[in-house]
This record gives sequence, structure tokens and C-alpha cells, in this order.
Amino acid sequence: MRDYHGKCEALHGHNYKVFVHVRGAELNEGGMLLDFTQLKAALKKVLDGLDHTNLNDNPFFDQNPSAERIALYICQNVQAELGAAARIFSVDVFETDKNRATYYPDF
Amino acid sequence: MRDYHGKCEALHGHNYKVFVHVRGAELNEGGMLLDFTQLKAALKKVLDGLDHTNLNDNPFFDQNPSAERIALYICQNVQAELGAAARIFSVDVFETDKNRATYYPDF
Amino acid sequence: MRDYHGKCEALHGHNYKVFVHVRGAELNEGGMLLDFTQLKAALKKVLDGLDHTNLNDNPFFDQNPSAERIALYICQNVQAELGAAARIFSVDVFETDKNRATYYPDF
Repeated sequence: MRDYHGKCEALHGHNYKVFVHVRGAELNEGGMLLDFTQLKAALKKVLDGLDHTNLNDNPFFDQNPSAERIALYICQNVQAELGAAARIFSVDVFETDKNRATYYPDF
Repeated sequence: MRDYHGKCEALHGHNYKVFVHVRGAELNEGGMLLDFTQLKAALKKVLDGLDHTNLNDNPFFDQNPSAERIALYICQNVQAELGAAARIFSVDVFETDKNRATYYPDF
Repeated sequence: MRDYHGKCEALHGHNYKVFVHVRGAELNEGGMLLDFTQLKAALKKVLDGLDHTNLNDNPFFDQNPSAERIALYICQNVQAELGAAARIFSVDVFETDKNRATYYPDF
């Protein structure tokens, strides 16, 4: 991270844990808001583009891939995958079990 | 599940994990919104009616006992048990550690 | 607990787990809402004042240190530590893995 003078200044990795929540007022005929497998496929596609890359090389993160920016990135890209099928309510990015950033696109 | 052509089509079981959240602006004299034991008793009563049954036989689920419909069912029935003692804010139904449906009665 | 006639009437201890969530619409130059280490330091300072004390001796809890009141106490004191740096959205106090009280200062 640039402009950050703690122990995260050096290049390092994380095992992020990500949750995407979609929201809606009506269920489909099968009683679902969105099939979990559809949501997982969209999330997997977006995460595959990040996994094992140096996030600093991705211009979106501006050399500071904070959990907040990663949550925003995942939200925008998973929403693009889902299209009109569902509206994302929130994206949680856990850097560790204790540190989480959540992005709410509609707040 | 009817009208669902994935691996969940066949009869199968889940170890659901359920959380019920109640909400209010005032605490009682003991400093509680609602005693946890009261909430647990109401939830237990409702879950006992579902446990080890074939959910497809329950007309409420219309042969598709999705996590979404189970959350709705639990919300309505636990709220009926609680009466005016507390207002349910949300019901989480975890199908697995990774798959959750949440029902918010007031959204 | 006073005025409580269940198994928690006698003096007892808990290993509480606490989460503090802050919220904001803008990230700082480093892409963060608030540095996790800053939030942790503020929380640690407040928790150190509670740890290994008899909460019944603290007048704030009025002899009933419910999870609800503990959440309120932590929220007010951590917010005072943070000042204008960030606004607390919610404080979760887990009495056990199954019992949680959450305080939302703005609800």
C-alpha cells in the first residue's frame, strides 16, 4: 500500500473471504430470489480475475487495494454479471475473521 | 424441489442454521429488549414443527422449500409466538455456511 | 443480574465477542474509511476498562449488565475515542456464538 506506513506497507497477500447479498421484494416461481448457483457463478467469474494477481497492478485500486475498494470493485463487476436478474444489497470483504469492509451500493 | 433442475432436484436434507433478530427502541427494566430465553423458546417451538419432516409435504412451501420461503415461514410463526413482546427485524436461514437467505418483514 | 430469575441470576462471567462497524460515504486517500488499526485501538481502550471487572460495580449498567447495555456503553465510549474520524454504524456484542445484541446509534 502506498501512503500507508504500518506493517501493510510491504507487498503481502490475504485470504479474503467475500459475501455478496442480493435483495428483492418478490420471489420467482421456485420460491427463490436468485438461484445461489447463479450468484456463485457470477462471483466466481469476478474473483477469478483477481485471484493470485498483484492487486497493485490493477489501476482500479490506485496502488491501495484496501478492503473497501475491493468490495466496491466486486460489487460493480458482479452487478454487471447479474444484470437485471438481481440487485446487489451489499458486499462483505473479510481481510481476516476480525476485519471486514462492507459496501452498500444504495446507501 | 419442483421446477428446479440442478443437483437439489432429488429429495435431500439440510442442517439449517437459523437466526432471528428482534428490534426495538426501548429496553425493559432489566436492560433487555427481550430475554434471549424467551426468543429461543419461541424459535424452538416453530423449528420443532419443521425438524425431521419432509418440507415438501407442508403446503406452505408449495413443493419448493427454498431458504427464502423457510425464512418467511419462521418469521411469521415466531412473530405469532412473540405477539406484542417484540418485533422481528430479520430472520437468517443458512442452508450451508456459505448460503444464506434473510427475510426482513419491514423492508 | 438483578430482577432476573433464571440461571444468570448468580455472578458469572462471559467471553464476549465485540464488533464495531463504522460507516461513511467517502474513503480517504488511501482508499479506507478508517484504518482498522485506529478502530481497534479505540475499541481496545474501551474494552480494557471493562475486562476482568465486575460489571455490576459499574453504575452505567445499573446492576444488569445485559448485552444490550454493554453494546450501548461500548458505542458511546468508542465514538468518543474516534471523535470526528468516523461515525459508528453498529456495535455487536456476542454473549455466546448464538446470542447477540446489536446497538445502532442512528436507528
